[in-house]
Amino acid sequence: LRRGAITNLQKIVNKTHAADLSVVFRNLSVNSQRKLFDMIVDYEQRAVLLSELSEYTFTDFIETIEVEELLDVFDHMPADDVADLIADLPPEKADAVLEKMKTEESEEVEDLLSYDDDTAGGIMVPDFVALSEENTAREAIESLQKDFPDVEMPFYLYVVDEHERLVGVVSLRQLVVVKPGTPLRDFMTTDIFSVKTDMDQEEVAKIVARYDILAVPVVDDNNRLMGIVTVDDVIDIFRQEATEDMLKMAGVGEEFVETQSVVSSTRIRLPWLFASCIGGILAFFIIGHFENTLKQVTYLAAFLPVIMGMGGNIGTQSSTIVVRGLATGRLVADDLRNVVCKELCIGMILGIIYGGLIALAAQIRFGAELNTAMLAVSVGLAVLSSMSIAALVGSLVPMVFGRINIDPAVATGPFVTTSIDIISVYCYFKIATQLLGL
Amino acid sequence: LRRGAITNLQKIVNKTHAADLSVVFRNLSVNSQRKLFDMIVDYEQRAVLLSELSEYTFTDFIETIEVEELLDVFDHMPADDVADLIADLPPEKADAVLEKMKTEESEEVEDLLSYDDDTAGGIMVPDFVALSEENTAREAIESLQKDFPDVEMPFYLYVVDEHERLVGVVSLRQLVVVKPGTPLRDFMTTDIFSVKTDMDQEEVAKIVARYDILAVPVVDDNNRLMGIVTVDDVIDIFRQEATEDMLKMAGVGEEFVETQSVVSSTRIRLPWLFASCIGGILAFFIIGHFENTLKQVTYLAAFLPVIMGMGGNIGTQSSTIVVRGLATGRLVADDLRNVVCKELCIGMILGIIYGGLIALAAQIRFGAELNTAMLAVSVGLAVLSSMSIAALVGSLVPMVFGRINIDPAVATGPFVTTSIDIISVYCYFKIATQLLGL
Repeated sequence: LRRGAITNLQKIVNKTHAADLSVVFRNLSVNSQRKLFDMIVDYEQRAVLLSELSEYTFTDFIETIEVEELLDVFDHMPADDVADLIADLPPEKADAVLEKMKTEESEEVEDLLSYDDDTAGGIMVPDFVALSEENTAREAIESLQKDFPDVEMPFYLYVVDEHERLVGVVSLRQLVVVKPGTPLRDFMTTDIFSVKTDMDQEEVAKIVARYDILAVPVVDDNNRLMGIVTVDDVIDIFRQEATEDMLKMAGVGEEFVETQSVVSSTRIRLPWLFASCIGGILAFFIIGHFENTLKQVTYLAAFLPVIMGMGGNIGTQSSTIVVRGLATGRLVADDLRNVVCKELCIGMILGIIYGGLIALAAQIRFGAELNTAMLAVSVGLAVLSSMSIAALVGSLVPMVFGRINIDPAVATGPFVTTSIDIISVYCYFKIATQLLGL
Repeated sequence: LRRGAITNLQKIVNKTHAADLSVVFRNLSVNSQRKLFDMIVDYEQRAVLLSELSEYTFTDFIETIEVEELLDVFDHMPADDVADLIADLPPEKADAVLEKMKTEESEEVEDLLSYDDDTAGGIMVPDFVALSEENTAREAIESLQKDFPDVEMPFYLYVVDEHERLVGVVSLRQLVVVKPGTPLRDFMTTDIFSVKTDMDQEEVAKIVARYDILAVPVVDDNNRLMGIVTVDDVIDIFRQEATEDMLKMAGVGEEFVETQSVVSSTRIRLPWLFASCIGGILAFFIIGHFENTLKQVTYLAAFLPVIMGMGGNIGTQSSTIVVRGLATGRLVADDLRNVVCKELCIGMILGIIYGGLIALAAQIRFGAELNTAMLAVSVGLAVLSSMSIAALVGSLVPMVFGRINIDPAVATGPFVTTSIDIISVYCYFKIATQLLGL
């Protein structure tokens, strides 16, 4: 790059929002990443960029950054993001950073690090505005300017008693519309939604979404205000949880790994296919067991794909509906009997329709040749049983998992598909052996 | 219910947030729904309840409500929600409601109804605070109290010129920390993110999420401020889009229908299984074509489940990764060649590993009996080809769809699975026929 080009590039970089730069960033070599990072003049923008990076990009890039430089950037970052990044640092570097931070800040960050990543405590920011109920609206506004210049988004001002226990909330909007001399006590809302530090982040997100609030206060067991979870983090949680659910259902773990190398992607996907492999091997032992049946009516083999395919597809339908229904609250785990019965009914109706259709096709293709309608009847019945079983298992397993508080999405990946396959194949050969009198 | 019980119930109902009541609501008969609705004293809570209902619950329930009653509730609802509900009303009722509304309001609602549901125009609220740049901070605060008492969440105040064109934005926070006499011009931000009325809602949501803002202004082609999209709607959009993607991938349309009756659920799911049915019938014609091969080595049939299963599972992995990667921006459609090559590599590596493993199992079970290793070799090669093809097709189809701006999620349902099945079966029999010299 020529000197002129660099100056131009620098101008562009500093006019671009760091969230956009992060997209470019991950496609660069570590060397170019370093150059780009240095071009960013504003420390706030550097902070946004760092916190937007994926874990893998961050750990590679961070090698090039000195502890001192990192501290300068962390100064311009909310404490929850700092804690997240420190958790991803190599241990020695993390310790060095925490040691050199200002005491107050490092205490904040260490507090945050002590909570589980996926709980309210792990995602809250300790930057909130807390005032006493004696304060007037005017004092509150003054305090906003003087005492809380760093608070990111002060839409709500929390009111606490002398023991830091949460007693009320006022919105910034209320503050500007009441008479300046009114004490907060007189217009604060005392009916507050708050969450405990150990609540699962998905539950927290659902509360914020359900009540359309911009932030929810996080309290400890003594109702002391510890932090707030803001709506921007809630958006990230929902997107992350949806991604995790989809990946689990597809059997690819729960981390989005496609930005990694071929070798690591392969390693992560390898074990998830093992269930399917074992299932397949089991299936060929089962079919081997029906060797005699198969020898006499070779055509039986021709229907394996359609029987497995129809079962597989309706099973995916049922399990997706249940998993997503539970995640969005449209279905509740306690409603097990109703949901499963309904899916079974749907499976049986669709099984009768498609079983009939496929039996008809089988009769047209092979009926004359074999001089019996029993092959077609067996195929039809096998499709019906395969589809009913698939709808049953596909809805039952995630519902049961949801009820005993295991993530339903895990229950629906390769394991369920494979067991449906095996049961279907077994039923098919059993029915055919009986009906064809073999 | 006895009289005392009703009074008690009424107390509970009025203490419960309407968002929670909506969960109970959908499990009640229309009659009980009506009684519950009447128990709610506060019109705002009635409004929240109505806007939280699913389309199907709403259309059934609304039969029991008179136009006048509906108007009272709509008075307490933001215009975008009113527009959404009116769109779901039967046409005569919708017309009656619009006629009887106050002119100003009905104009607002009719304007909103003219935009496509899934665009910025369809989801924006017309309740925003717009001021002139000549206004001082004090005037702005006064105006908040007098002119805009209804604005839901006034975190941002927009500054417009004499033609209503958007020129700047100030936050409520800035308003309270500057000197009261400062004109907005002096501290407003002129570098604003805004979106056009016809922008797709998913794009709008991504902008709000990326820049961590609470609301984004919506402008028409002349940069005139028409409304704002707030962060609470953005959360709903992300959840809805994730649900749609999952349902499309599972082949169940895009609406969540499990709250409907068995018959309507069945009707909606029926056509999506047709691709799989046709594919399965095609597969038995293909296998019928290899009748001779199959007659001589009956055992070939035993490996159909494992070959199809391994291909199906890796295909689901690849397509889920691509679809979700595109939706979250972790993958970009322009990167087609890289993404597809990588998936193909992964497919081939996993194919070699599992192909080897399954061939070994096949040799152990059937090798001695048949006195040849060729069956095992055919099976191994078939697994390899099935997995490579599945990874290729599973990533290529959604990437291509993403590039030509068709929703990639549609591309990955039953159609892809079925075509992978057929290709795999064909390859398997072709390979076996060759290797076993049949």
